[in-house]
Amino acid sequence: MPPATAPFSWQIRVYYEDTDAGGVVFYANYLKFFERARTEWLRAMGFHQHSLAQTEGVIFVVKNTSVDYLSPAKLDDVLTLTVVIEKLGRASISFVQEAWRSDPDTGNTTLLARGSITVVSVDTATFRPQAIPEKILHATRQYVST
Amino acid sequence: MPPATAPFSWQIRVYYEDTDAGGVVFYANYLKFFERARTEWLRAMGFHQHSLAQTEGVIFVVKNTSVDYLSPAKLDDVLTLTVVIEKLGRASISFVQEAWRSDPDTGNTTLLARGSITVVSVDTATFRPQAIPEKILHATRQYVST
Amino acid sequence: MPPATAPFSWQIRVYYEDTDAGGVVFYANYLKFFERARTEWLRAMGFHQHSLAQTEGVIFVVKNTSVDYLSPAKLDDVLTLTVVIEKLGRASISFVQEAWRSDPDTGNTTLLARGSITVVSVDTATFRPQAIPEKILHATRQYVST
Amino acid sequence: MPPATAPFSWQIRVYYEDTDAGGVVFYANYLKFFERARTEWLRAMGFHQHSLAQTEGVIFVVKNTSVDYLSPAKLDDVLTLTVVIEKLGRASISFVQEAWRSDPDTGNTTLLARGSITVVSVDTATFRPQAIPEKILHATRQYVST
Repeated sequence: MPPATAPFSWQIRVYYEDTDAGGVVFYANYLKFFERARTEWLRAMGFHQHSLAQTEGVIFVVKNTSVDYLSPAKLDDVLTLTVVIEKLGRASISFVQEAWRSDPDTGNTTLLARGSITVVSVDTATFRPQAIPEKILHATRQYVST
Repeated sequence: MPPATAPFSWQIRVYYEDTDAGGVVFYANYLKFFERARTEWLRAMGFHQHSLAQTEGVIFVVKNTSVDYLSPAKLDDVLTLTVVIEKLGRASISFVQEAWRSDPDTGNTTLLARGSITVVSVDTATFRPQAIPEKILHATRQYVST
Repeated sequence: MPPATAPFSWQIRVYYEDTDAGGVVFYANYLKFFERARTEWLRAMGFHQHSLAQTEGVIFVVKNTSVDYLSPAKLDDVLTLTVVIEKLGRASISFVQEAWRSDPDTGNTTLLARGSITVVSVDTATFRPQAIPEKILHATRQYVST
Repeated sequence: MPPATAPFSWQIRVYYEDTDAGGVVFYANYLKFFERARTEWLRAMGFHQHSLAQTEGVIFVVKNTSVDYLSPAKLDDVLTLTVVIEKLGRASISFVQEAWRSDPDTGNTTLLARGSITVVSVDTATFRPQAIPEKILHATRQYVST
């Protein structure tokens, strides 16, 4: 049961827009779901992607995504998305993120997808890697898996 | 200020996935936002699109959408989406839906988009129009604008 | 049969990404299809949205979309999208666009969706309406329905 | 220059719908582009995803995607997508796919993204892995990298 152990989790609902003709969530959309969770994780620490660009001159750019699709999600499902930091570099963060579904009747939880996402902090002007601002580094350390 | 007067409203957050290279929300995505609000409106009344198909043998199909785009939404904005029924037919419902943004600092609200959406209740097997189930009709009447 | 009479048409293929759990093309995606056709129509006349912003200082912003969904499109369908100008204003263009499917076996064509899309020419700096550049106006006149 | 060496390639155009507020193609959309190329690769061999389900009782389900994002694509870019089979199993296919951009002026090509995508052939009824139909196996062998 991920919500108990994950440092940060975020819930979303599956709508028609998320599904495909196979009757399940279109696999590419898990990348959207994972990003929503990372954005809300940043927000929970007081950081906003939009203002980070303006005040710190850095944006986070996605460099690599790797996702295993284990079980399909369906229309109306509620998914719990988790955010754990696997590796915190000077200018990059590697996340492990999972999408879980809880069955409202049985309480059983199912792991639907598991991803590794690496983002790089880049200068908004030059697009070159730039050290993650110290205040973000400081705040994120509690989310590093041990 | 729509939340005060609208029978039903739903809030969403704007993520990168919703924007385009113009720096604002891609206009087609307001149709997704409006559908999320209608889905949650149904859910608030106790109806789920997925189970309606199975228990009642009907699904709602979108027949017409008309949207005026008045002001752009940006990354990180919180939008309030409203749901009002303009016309309740035997097998169709016409909604008026709006997307509003509240400025967290000033409290000013701005109308971003206004849409008219018509959905038709159809038989899941024949795809022909079928009367809206009585229990849905009954529940929805309080949302009809007067 | 629209290709014969429409001033401009563009073909696209329906992929999984375009469909939803209803097994058909998600209705909001017709706005994407229509935009692809308008973009290719501009390109066929020698104009590129990206460079128009830089050389002319104007971009086209969508102000209104109205779409009737008449018949569903399915995975693997080839759709023909048409572009006709209904009204050419000083700073706005109103298009009528249709999505048609030809049955490869019978040759029968079916109208799937019909939309009215209004775009406004705005200044890239001020976002205020600005007269459509003369060379675009001149080129587009042949596409005005009569 | 990938088109010369890749067994199969497919070209797409970048539209507004593909971009995000960063001004470039939203990274999740490369999964859509790669799938378009795989679908057209199947079609070029005479197989259609829709009819495979009906005639052979199998569908291909994506089990893993791993993508490195190397350089951003922009509005109006033409991308060349390649399809190479890295591993052909009894019930699975692992692809290596790349997205390249050719500069129309200089002729220089740039690798934008590189992905590994694994799909599994499953029974449409049970969703259990099922051997890839022999006629598909036979046709695909020429695309296996050596």
